[in-house]
Amino acid sequence: MTSNSEILTLDAIQAAARRIAPFVQKTPIVALTPTGIGLKAESLHPIGAFKIRGAFNALLSLSEAERRRGVVAHSSGNHAQAVAYAAKTLGIQCAVVMPENVSHVKLAATKSWGAEVFLVKPAERVSKCESLARERGAVIIEPFDSLAIMAGTGTIGLEILKQRPDVRFVTVPVSGGGLIGGLSAAVTQSAPEVAVIGVEPVLANDAEQSFRKGEIVRLSTEEAGRTMADGLRVPQLGRLPFANIRRFVRDIVSVTEDEIASAMRLIAAEARLIAEPSGAVALAGALKLGLDAPSTVAVLSGGNVKPAFYASIIAA
Amino acid sequence: MTSNSEILTLDAIQAAARRIAPFVQKTPIVALTPTGIGLKAESLHPIGAFKIRGAFNALLSLSEAERRRGVVAHSSGNHAQAVAYAAKTLGIQCAVVMPENVSHVKLAATKSWGAEVFLVKPAERVSKCESLARERGAVIIEPFDSLAIMAGTGTIGLEILKQRPDVRFVTVPVSGGGLIGGLSAAVTQSAPEVAVIGVEPVLANDAEQSFRKGEIVRLSTEEAGRTMADGLRVPQLGRLPFANIRRFVRDIVSVTEDEIASAMRLIAAEARLIAEPSGAVALAGALKLGLDAPSTVAVLSGGNVKPAFYASIIAA
Repeated sequence: MTSNSEILTLDAIQAAARRIAPFVQKTPIVALTPTGIGLKAESLHPIGAFKIRGAFNALLSLSEAERRRGVVAHSSGNHAQAVAYAAKTLGIQCAVVMPENVSHVKLAATKSWGAEVFLVKPAERVSKCESLARERGAVIIEPFDSLAIMAGTGTIGLEILKQRPDVRFVTVPVSGGGLIGGLSAAVTQSAPEVAVIGVEPVLANDAEQSFRKGEIVRLSTEEAGRTMADGLRVPQLGRLPFANIRRFVRDIVSVTEDEIASAMRLIAAEARLIAEPSGAVALAGALKLGLDAPSTVAVLSGGNVKPAFYASIIAA
Repeated sequence: MTSNSEILTLDAIQAAARRIAPFVQKTPIVALTPTGIGLKAESLHPIGAFKIRGAFNALLSLSEAERRRGVVAHSSGNHAQAVAYAAKTLGIQCAVVMPENVSHVKLAATKSWGAEVFLVKPAERVSKCESLARERGAVIIEPFDSLAIMAGTGTIGLEILKQRPDVRFVTVPVSGGGLIGGLSAAVTQSAPEVAVIGVEPVLANDAEQSFRKGEIVRLSTEEAGRTMADGLRVPQLGRLPFANIRRFVRDIVSVTEDEIASAMRLIAAEARLIAEPSGAVALAGALKLGLDAPSTVAVLSGGNVKPAFYASIIAA
């Protein structure tokens, strides 16, 4: 059973939109030629990913006393950058725990925003984060299992409805569920006729399995680590995201690694945007479902990718 | 001597802005982290280049009789795509003359917009275009030597001033001069304190030479063809662009091929945007001049580039 306190309200999302407006620019929807599918280009934020929205909303919701004690976060990459960037902007101390297999690009960027970084084995991220929080009295900024984070990501949904009033389908990558949880709460409560559809790599399709089964399915970190979509390697949905996904998401589908690579090439050639694999997943899902009209918007969640790896995909 | 009829008025640019508004989306200024230099992302138009603005303004300025007779254009690529795209949108017949060494990407895209394409030696573009116009009674849509085209590109300048009221420097690629001619007329007449600076490849620096000498300097097509910036291989400035450049541009500088490649990599890594070499030239110029603050905007003019070539630059 889902309790109502787990459901994200439109009011909370609208409040987040007002809170983050001075710090987070609206992102454009770029038309993918020639079909006209819209790409909501969250890759164009200063840190190259949508995570900046949740991070600002969470930090701006802290009390003065909490701000003074600082924050800690754990993340496979983009959330870390986002919290570090937002903390620096707002003058808050920040420590970040990252898995040791994190991409060099994301590691370097996180450090460049002034955060103190701890590298640990992927399975130890949460425990290390908790011990740091205890030692320092710092607040943990959850990557996705948080209503404040989801209210921040929900603002993407409000923008899409304003920018494309005729939208009928929104496809969204799924990892821990913070992005789709917040976005689907925003879209479905504002415009129930719009279908929000989650997309995952076949190699890390715990959310698709969870959605079908009606309960959270957990993969091993090794299983979930097989996909090249490094932003989508979280092995299970968060509790709060899952509650919102069950209520507000129409369906969840999965795509192969080849389909992700094709989508990256298409985004480069037809929209001149750089998508990381996790960022191309939503377009891959839209194409797999045959959604190729201007009434479809795919969320391009981020563009942080190693140059050599990106070049190898593009040249293929 | 420049006659006043050669100078582009603010009125003409504002009229163009109203005329093209239903067809051309405003482009975002994307902040290049960590400096905050703005990239005016003209690569995000459906055809991947700023040329869409001039093309729509020119076609929308035709009489009904002219529209019925159709249009012809010659171009190294992006102008062809733009005229083809605008003509298709407005239901006008369109033929395009392209140099036989044009990139496959630009050729395929132009054909995909329904234009009839003629490939000729680079030096024969103009004559072929004129003979087609005579045979068909069609109107020639000039790529740059036209006040209608420059009024269209001038709208970029109006947008920059609105989006970044604190801007102090705008760097702009120079080819035939249509982009910088229109943009500088818009910016300098609205905000004389803002310096508009042209940037060219060292290997095709006819505009820099012309600016210093006070008269149009012509390179051979072979000389101008040496740069990898295929959009900037026009061997001399147009007469009308030069008149506006002399009046409204602060300076013109040139950059090496290596500096262009570095700027392409930086744009990929720090703004997640794909820039063709011609599109990266303005950022290369800004960095060469030490303009690396948020008060600088570099015009990223286009993102149409062969995937394999782009990959080779990015992986370097």
